[in-house]
Amino acid sequence: MRVGVINGPNLNLLGTREPSLYGGVTLDQVETLVRAEGRSLGVDIEWAQSNVEGELVNAIQRLGQSCEGLILNAGAYTHTSLAIRDAVAAVAVPTVEVHLSNIFGREAARRQTVLADAVIGVIAGFGSTSYLLGLRALYSRLARA
Amino acid sequence: MRVGVINGPNLNLLGTREPSLYGGVTLDQVETLVRAEGRSLGVDIEWAQSNVEGELVNAIQRLGQSCEGLILNAGAYTHTSLAIRDAVAAVAVPTVEVHLSNIFGREAARRQTVLADAVIGVIAGFGSTSYLLGLRALYSRLARA
Amino acid sequence: MRVGVINGPNLNLLGTREPSLYGGVTLDQVETLVRAEGRSLGVDIEWAQSNVEGELVNAIQRLGQSCEGLILNAGAYTHTSLAIRDAVAAVAVPTVEVHLSNIFGREAARRQTVLADAVIGVIAGFGSTSYLLGLRALYSRLARA
Amino acid sequence: MRVGVINGPNLNLLGTREPSLYGGVTLDQVETLVRAEGRSLGVDIEWAQSNVEGELVNAIQRLGQSCEGLILNAGAYTHTSLAIRDAVAAVAVPTVEVHLSNIFGREAARRQTVLADAVIGVIAGFGSTSYLLGLRALYSRLARA
Amino acid sequence: MRVGVINGPNLNLLGTREPSLYGGVTLDQVETLVRAEGRSLGVDIEWAQSNVEGELVNAIQRLGQSCEGLILNAGAYTHTSLAIRDAVAAVAVPTVEVHLSNIFGREAARRQTVLADAVIGVIAGFGSTSYLLGLRALYSRLARA
Amino acid sequence: MRVGVINGPNLNLLGTREPSLYGGVTLDQVETLVRAEGRSLGVDIEWAQSNVEGELVNAIQRLGQSCEGLILNAGAYTHTSLAIRDAVAAVAVPTVEVHLSNIFGREAARRQTVLADAVIGVIAGFGSTSYLLGLRALYSRLARA
Amino acid sequence: MRVGVINGPNLNLLGTREPSLYGGVTLDQVETLVRAEGRSLGVDIEWAQSNVEGELVNAIQRLGQSCEGLILNAGAYTHTSLAIRDAVAAVAVPTVEVHLSNIFGREAARRQTVLADAVIGVIAGFGSTSYLLGLRALYSRLARA
Amino acid sequence: MRVGVINGPNLNLLGTREPSLYGGVTLDQVETLVRAEGRSLGVDIEWAQSNVEGELVNAIQRLGQSCEGLILNAGAYTHTSLAIRDAVAAVAVPTVEVHLSNIFGREAARRQTVLADAVIGVIAGFGSTSYLLGLRALYSRLARA
Amino acid sequence: MRVGVINGPNLNLLGTREPSLYGGVTLDQVETLVRAEGRSLGVDIEWAQSNVEGELVNAIQRLGQSCEGLILNAGAYTHTSLAIRDAVAAVAVPTVEVHLSNIFGREAARRQTVLADAVIGVIAGFGSTSYLLGLRALYSRLARA
Amino acid sequence: MRVGVINGPNLNLLGTREPSLYGGVTLDQVETLVRAEGRSLGVDIEWAQSNVEGELVNAIQRLGQSCEGLILNAGAYTHTSLAIRDAVAAVAVPTVEVHLSNIFGREAARRQTVLADAVIGVIAGFGSTSYLLGLRALYSRLARA
Amino acid sequence: MRVGVINGPNLNLLGTREPSLYGGVTLDQVETLVRAEGRSLGVDIEWAQSNVEGELVNAIQRLGQSCEGLILNAGAYTHTSLAIRDAVAAVAVPTVEVHLSNIFGREAARRQTVLADAVIGVIAGFGSTSYLLGLRALYSRLARA
Amino acid sequence: MRVGVINGPNLNLLGTREPSLYGGVTLDQVETLVRAEGRSLGVDIEWAQSNVEGELVNAIQRLGQSCEGLILNAGAYTHTSLAIRDAVAAVAVPTVEVHLSNIFGREAARRQTVLADAVIGVIAGFGSTSYLLGLRALYSRLARA
Repeated sequence: MRVGVINGPNLNLLGTREPSLYGGVTLDQVETLVRAEGRSLGVDIEWAQSNVEGELVNAIQRLGQSCEGLILNAGAYTHTSLAIRDAVAAVAVPTVEVHLSNIFGREAARRQTVLADAVIGVIAGFGSTSYLLGLRALYSRLARA
Repeated sequence: MRVGVINGPNLNLLGTREPSLYGGVTLDQVETLVRAEGRSLGVDIEWAQSNVEGELVNAIQRLGQSCEGLILNAGAYTHTSLAIRDAVAAVAVPTVEVHLSNIFGREAARRQTVLADAVIGVIAGFGSTSYLLGLRALYSRLARA
Repeated sequence: MRVGVINGPNLNLLGTREPSLYGGVTLDQVETLVRAEGRSLGVDIEWAQSNVEGELVNAIQRLGQSCEGLILNAGAYTHTSLAIRDAVAAVAVPTVEVHLSNIFGREAARRQTVLADAVIGVIAGFGSTSYLLGLRALYSRLARA
Repeated sequence: MRVGVINGPNLNLLGTREPSLYGGVTLDQVETLVRAEGRSLGVDIEWAQSNVEGELVNAIQRLGQSCEGLILNAGAYTHTSLAIRDAVAAVAVPTVEVHLSNIFGREAARRQTVLADAVIGVIAGFGSTSYLLGLRALYSRLARA
Repeated sequence: MRVGVINGPNLNLLGTREPSLYGGVTLDQVETLVRAEGRSLGVDIEWAQSNVEGELVNAIQRLGQSCEGLILNAGAYTHTSLAIRDAVAAVAVPTVEVHLSNIFGREAARRQTVLADAVIGVIAGFGSTSYLLGLRALYSRLARA
Repeated sequence: MRVGVINGPNLNLLGTREPSLYGGVTLDQVETLVRAEGRSLGVDIEWAQSNVEGELVNAIQRLGQSCEGLILNAGAYTHTSLAIRDAVAAVAVPTVEVHLSNIFGREAARRQTVLADAVIGVIAGFGSTSYLLGLRALYSRLARA
Repeated sequence: MRVGVINGPNLNLLGTREPSLYGGVTLDQVETLVRAEGRSLGVDIEWAQSNVEGELVNAIQRLGQSCEGLILNAGAYTHTSLAIRDAVAAVAVPTVEVHLSNIFGREAARRQTVLADAVIGVIAGFGSTSYLLGLRALYSRLARA
Repeated sequence: MRVGVINGPNLNLLGTREPSLYGGVTLDQVETLVRAEGRSLGVDIEWAQSNVEGELVNAIQRLGQSCEGLILNAGAYTHTSLAIRDAVAAVAVPTVEVHLSNIFGREAARRQTVLADAVIGVIAGFGSTSYLLGLRALYSRLARA
Repeated sequence: MRVGVINGPNLNLLGTREPSLYGGVTLDQVETLVRAEGRSLGVDIEWAQSNVEGELVNAIQRLGQSCEGLILNAGAYTHTSLAIRDAVAAVAVPTVEVHLSNIFGREAARRQTVLADAVIGVIAGFGSTSYLLGLRALYSRLARA
Repeated sequence: MRVGVINGPNLNLLGTREPSLYGGVTLDQVETLVRAEGRSLGVDIEWAQSNVEGELVNAIQRLGQSCEGLILNAGAYTHTSLAIRDAVAAVAVPTVEVHLSNIFGREAARRQTVLADAVIGVIAGFGSTSYLLGLRALYSRLARA
Repeated sequence: MRVGVINGPNLNLLGTREPSLYGGVTLDQVETLVRAEGRSLGVDIEWAQSNVEGELVNAIQRLGQSCEGLILNAGAYTHTSLAIRDAVAAVAVPTVEVHLSNIFGREAARRQTVLADAVIGVIAGFGSTSYLLGLRALYSRLARA
Repeated sequence: MRVGVINGPNLNLLGTREPSLYGGVTLDQVETLVRAEGRSLGVDIEWAQSNVEGELVNAIQRLGQSCEGLILNAGAYTHTSLAIRDAVAAVAVPTVEVHLSNIFGREAARRQTVLADAVIGVIAGFGSTSYLLGLRALYSRLARA
């Protein structure tokens, strides 16, 4: 089983960027945690990050082909990008939307996600644990299918 | 470690109610799954359900005293109840908001949660698995504290 | 044939409450009229009233089991209660929404009903006659089925 | 006793038009049913239909003179026509607003009626039975006066 | 002279709940202060609290019969409950709306009160003193009548 | 000099229609007053009335050819009819918008006029005098040209 | 008979201020025209202008005492000033609202007047002629009383 | 193959009406162009125009019976007429919506079309060429069926 | 102890202005009542009134220096004046907002106060008693400090 | 004559992506169709596609130099991208906006195009035929110039 | 060269008013800095401050005559005052809008400026430096003319 | 001292793009001016431009490391890009937002900047001078630190 994990804008700065909001763990450390969890479940992980909206579309298209499921943290594009939403709908593999912070409890512009009607579920607010829960959720869904 | 799980309106009908939307698992079966997961983590589970908004406030107040964390599926009250949100804020124990369906991808009135700024995180869309992920998220948070 | 009639908040004050708006007939008198009309149609009537939103959810769940159709006057909860709407959708028996006053011609907050997409039809503005028309509408629907 | 029944745009296509939404009964058949119900109540029926908003204003003005009450299904003009609303207010005979489909449970643009504050009540969702209930409601009101 | 004082959701936690926002005085202490003030004015106090919206409707109906005026702190239901508003309008005794915190200076959802057009006046922001001022306001009004 | 006066829906009922709002003068009497004022200014009057929006478009097109200016009371179509607005813009003769009642002080839906950016000015609130002032305004404009 | 004419902000610049929008006539010239028209009708004119919102309130209060009617061009305060609206309502003499430009056809912020529900009518778009028509409208109203 | 072309309000003035916006070609000339294009495709053209919204409903109903497809330029009714939209949906023949001007780049009120969800496609902005393209689009669709 | 009382636009007309809404007591009489209440509490009263928004800013700045607390009835400026709000925030002495009428139960534009987040509390609806309650509230606050 | 055709996000998946919505034709096949139509008209075609918003800006800038007209299907960026709109306005060659699906009849977020006021016209809903019609529209415009 | 600098409400309290927001520099000190900068550029400075909206209109009218450019910090009136905006447009000398704080990053009500479409540019967020930059911007513009 | 200057979409066309709106100076010329001003202040300039939103995020991340301050003209992304805003917040060096045109006086969609709450200040409307003022503002801020 292969799962793609796709990270959006400014997540490459994780650990140094507003740590009171996003925590002190770096994206490399999150990747290590996810790969370890993947190994324990027998899941290979494909990892991608870009600050460019269209590169995220590309990554979804590419990993949507090579993987059986996706974990997507689209960062700030979550709130506006119909293009990313459409890419998720187009590849049609089960996708879990994750967020480090609890976006639904933040300022108004971050409380809505335009991606959500193309994904199977949303997990937000648990820092790097959001990714691990997302992987479990996806695994549980794929195993059931 | 003790965790309270609180269920809102119409969840007592789970399994028979619009199964295409909410699945065929009953609330008793969800409880069994959660208790099993709790046992595996060494967590005692307190379980509550009510169709009455104010009884949910009561349950949050009561379980917020006897437990170290809460899992809350407020059902349709999620979208409007400041009283439930205030109860969560008042008891001040870590609370995870869970939903069976992916509310952020449903009709407009269900895309907003007024509870979210009082909880530590939100998990939506994975059926009964949402509860299990919520328990893990809470456990991870409480274990870290 | 059995029909449940469920009455919401403040309807227990009918006849004394703002009679210029809601008329001088008491809820007991409405019940008597409905039961009489029921007898003439060969329909048994189950009658319920509560001021508590969640008790109305309970009543809909209970009468939705024992009856073949429901008449629902949710009073002020009509305009906000997704929980009551979901209960109607969950029990999935034909339900007619009735109102004593013509809510669609009143102040803005009362012109919308969040229940309406779960019921088969709406009757508003005819005082206690709204109930009798609702019973006939339901009877006509059930007889046809 | 004489009652005018006024039908708005596209109702002349009833029976052939989107039957899954509006049913398979033609407007002629509705007229026959209403006249029969009228006869049983001792009420003469005046019948009118037009696709032209202003002709509906004319019909309301004309039948508002010759009749003691009106039944009005303004179709799609229900949601926008202040002119029709003003005609009803101007003739000042009791008017019942009826709809074949349950407009309050349909798409947003059809959930509001600008006519409603000029009529005595609204009945929606019961197909041709809406007309019969409207006639009974009006009869009950006129008989009481 | 008899005055009913009715308290809404989460007020039973007063003193322990977010004390920076609501102060450190308990609801029992507020009751003691109000009863003392009542005695000094020759006013008997009826006291009620519930977390359940519909129980507040019940309390308003019951105390609205036995008392000549009401003091109402509906807590979080203030901002949404037409049912409580209608109960106040139905019992038709002078009612003063009070709030511990200055709701009009808080977040947007708390700046509006749907109760206000059914009460004679509003007092907000003075902690437990809001109740004492409310009692004086009511006394002054009842004495004048 | 020739001026067209065009009257919209329900104005044919003037004098009998809600006289507390629109006054007791009939439309024939208004016409007589306008023709008299026209004579005193040396202006011929063309008079038209229709309840049909499109007939008002026709009248504007026709009188916009034969007259040097128009006075338009579009009644309830004032608030919604882009078609009438476009007809005024198309004929490109100076047009004065008049209203019997002070629409800008009435309910929200009547406070906006979609015609106004195609006319030279608006006069509202003076009963039949609105027409006479409109004629003077138009005369003053045409005389100056 | 005595009529007060009150002019708001920037009207003192009339004739030099954006003449393509407001015309080339100065406010002194408007005053001369109004006084001449007043003389022909046997009406004394009181004239006031201020750029200060509160001074306009003062002027309305003062002239509302000494005059039997008011003509008010509140300029840019028209769109926002409840204080001026309340002053008009307080003095309770018939007031006509006038505007040089056709505010209802201008940009969105200028299309609404918060004064309108306190005046008897509105005249907009005819340059200085708006004042003369306003005087006639007021005269006609006062003469009839 | 037979196609109906239906033209809405003020299109009869084409060529003289605001030519900078709508061009200098008359509606007769557009008809000639469309008929010529029809002949080259072997398509008979039925042509209709009315300023009356309800007459357009009539034309859609009539031509929707005699033709296999419709081209509809509803002019200013495009933005508000649910009745015309419902007529298109009722007749259920493929319909192409065309506009002379690029309505989506004009003022806000003209940027929305309430017809669009009942048609197969929209063409706007190419003057009389919009009709010719519409005919080709319809031909291509009908030929494929 | 010294308290400033500042009154906004049209309050100088109190007693004669819309007495059904604002009561028959004059502002001088309110001042007398407040001074008497002040004497009984050992509080000196500074009194100010102006119809000019900026003069109210001036008064707040001046009395905010010489007094230990303020009572502010900003009248119609309550709903729009950020300048008055900023003055209250700038002087940083405890300020109580008072209103004669129950603004929260009046028309929409009067239900919001932009001042409220700069004051310690709000009292509305008790006529001149609002001032006396405001003085007591302020006294209680200042005495506690 | 040379025309640039620019395709936005996810169009590279055409034929496999939600074929019930976008059809089964691939983007290569669309290109072949457009080039064939171009040859028949004597028009050279430049073809571009990117998932990256800014690359579309680049393509518009580049092809806007080398071509005399553009056909633009900006996909999901249509609804939000001022940057793409500004690129079209900057290059100032005639541009036709095309869409495969009828965006004006889809969900609310897709009904608006922010590009439209920079293009000469819009064609939506005809699948790959939209491109061919767009080419004809552009050809007709360029040939006329 | 002569430049007018006009300061709005509460700016006279600068240095003492909410220093964390507006800094510790007094308005006199700002004036000294601006005059010094003016001297270095050969620009005479006219200085004005008022808390009264209409006095700011007066100052703009007066300094707009005697100066070749204006620097305007309208304080809280920035967000609502069409009268001040109209004064700027009326005097038609180049005007630069300045703000001490970064209003575009503050609460919603302060993010919009109704003045901006009458000024040549806006500078916000640099404390007293905003004035100096504004003077340079104006100087650069006037020198170029 | 080192300052990064980052330019967004379509700014590479400066000088040729809508010169009436953006002026005739090219971006190279702006760069030359800024570098000259930098030299006079002893500030090294890093210069970047991209049409791609995510490349601007990259540039902010890169220059935010190598420079002590940033000047950012995000062009059309200003109004929608939370990703760019988050990049500015993440790098946490003082950033000045500049615009060539006065965006606050342009059409509605351009009047808001979502970047503003992450920058220290905003300068708009002075053409290339906006950059020079931005550099001075930044220099003044950095020199003070």
